Amino acid sequence: MKMRHLKLTVAYDGTAYGGWQLQPNAMTVQEVLETALAKIAGHHVRVHGSGRTDAGVHARAQVANCSFATKLSPHVIRSALNANLPQDIRVLQVQEVDAKFHARFSANGKEYRYQIDCGAVADPFLRGYVWHHTKPLDLTAMRQAARLFKGRHDFSALSANPLRPVENRVRTISKLTIGRSGRVLTITVRADGFLYKMVRSIVGALVKAGEGKSNVEQLRALMRAKKRTAFIETAPARGLFLWRVFY
Amino acid sequence: MKMRHLKLTVAYDGTAYGGWQLQPNAMTVQEVLETALAKIAGHHVRVHGSGRTDAGVHARAQVANCSFATKLSPHVIRSALNANLPQDIRVLQVQEVDAKFHARFSANGKEYRYQIDCGAVADPFLRGYVWHHTKPLDLTAMRQAARLFKGRHDFSALSANPLRPVENRVRTISKLTIGRSGRVLTITVRADGFLYKMVRSIVGALVKAGEGKSNVEQLRALMRAKKRTAFIETAPARGLFLWRVFY
Repeated sequence: MKMRHLKLTVAYDGTAYGGWQLQPNAMTVQEVLETALAKIAGHHVRVHGSGRTDAGVHARAQVANCSFATKLSPHVIRSALNANLPQDIRVLQVQEVDAKFHARFSANGKEYRYQIDCGAVADPFLRGYVWHHTKPLDLTAMRQAARLFKGRHDFSALSANPLRPVENRVRTISKLTIGRSGRVLTITVRADGFLYKMVRSIVGALVKAGEGKSNVEQLRALMRAKKRTAFIETAPARGLFLWRVFY
Repeated sequence: MKMRHLKLTVAYDGTAYGGWQLQPNAMTVQEVLETALAKIAGHHVRVHGSGRTDAGVHARAQVANCSFATKLSPHVIRSALNANLPQDIRVLQVQEVDAKFHARFSANGKEYRYQIDCGAVADPFLRGYVWHHTKPLDLTAMRQAARLFKGRHDFSALSANPLRPVENRVRTISKLTIGRSGRVLTITVRADGFLYKMVRSIVGALVKAGEGKSNVEQLRALMRAKKRTAFIETAPARGLFLWRVFY
């Protein structure tokens, strides 16, 4: 049997999970994926994701890698995995890659999208995938605030309390757009990397600007202070999608 | 307090419910709505729907009517109802109507939509709202078959075993289209009325044609025989939406 190095592209509805990464007290996507892989490989297979997603966050295309000896083709592995996975996790693609490929360390960027439902009454079909926000949002003010965050900055003020206090918190946001389609706003954020809860904090800051509760000067001062404060809310997990990982 | 006659427009994700209509062994949308209304009215309020939807079927805009004495405005009733309803049921609109209005008897037509996900791997975000169908479907054959069903016909062959054997099973389909948007087919059916499981049987027949397992001659003979047979499958409930009721 040949040792195969595989790149898995995985979509999941994060509603039922305690996030991507293995943890003792909650079911996680990684755990469920490793359980399905074990049925195919005949032994435990470690999966390496491109990064964590938090409890309740979704993925349109998370990327993970793993290696095991198998006679099965990537296409058959995909079918076998999907047959062994619950319907809220689907393996979209299985590709053979070089042994050096690592979902996390080989990545050079990611895109997240965040959905806000601005309808007066929540849409029951979107309820798991949006932040239902009924106060009026000024799109122009949001876009003005977004310009502050684009580019290379220290995002300490827009991330949760760090696990590692001395880490480098400078990231480069190459794309930050706010689109509207009917009643749904979609915020797209692309960067070379993301800090813990960075996208949901950016969304919180943009919504604050859209509500008229903060202006550009306040947000500029906040960024300069490089300190997370209670002024910025973290937007709910259910509106967030890991959209794409770049290699 | 003034007696108010109200028309409610209700959206619901039918996944968790045993359909619209009250029944002893399952939670239904009507029951949940009547429970919420009782909290506002202070007593039980009977709700009349435009018709049943089966277990697992969704509604984008079901219509119901009810009457009770209240000081509250329709707008406030809507908010109060939504505050007392689970998130998979939302009251979109509350309008005051004439005492003669009846959601079922005043209706002169309905539109249903049915979604089929033709992707090789199911989309986890659509899983509750589509029939995932991986065998290739010939759209031209489906549209050819659809032409047979359009217009005024006896739809005995395309409904489930009737509860009342002598009922009139002639209905007029004024619209029957099959659209494609990416990987999702949407079948739209508009008629003056529908028999039990008629839309899902039509979808089953169209899919059979799309798979090349039936031709126009066979379907014509089936319609003429006016008998439901095992040849026609009933498409799964989760792909079906009551889209609109016409008055």
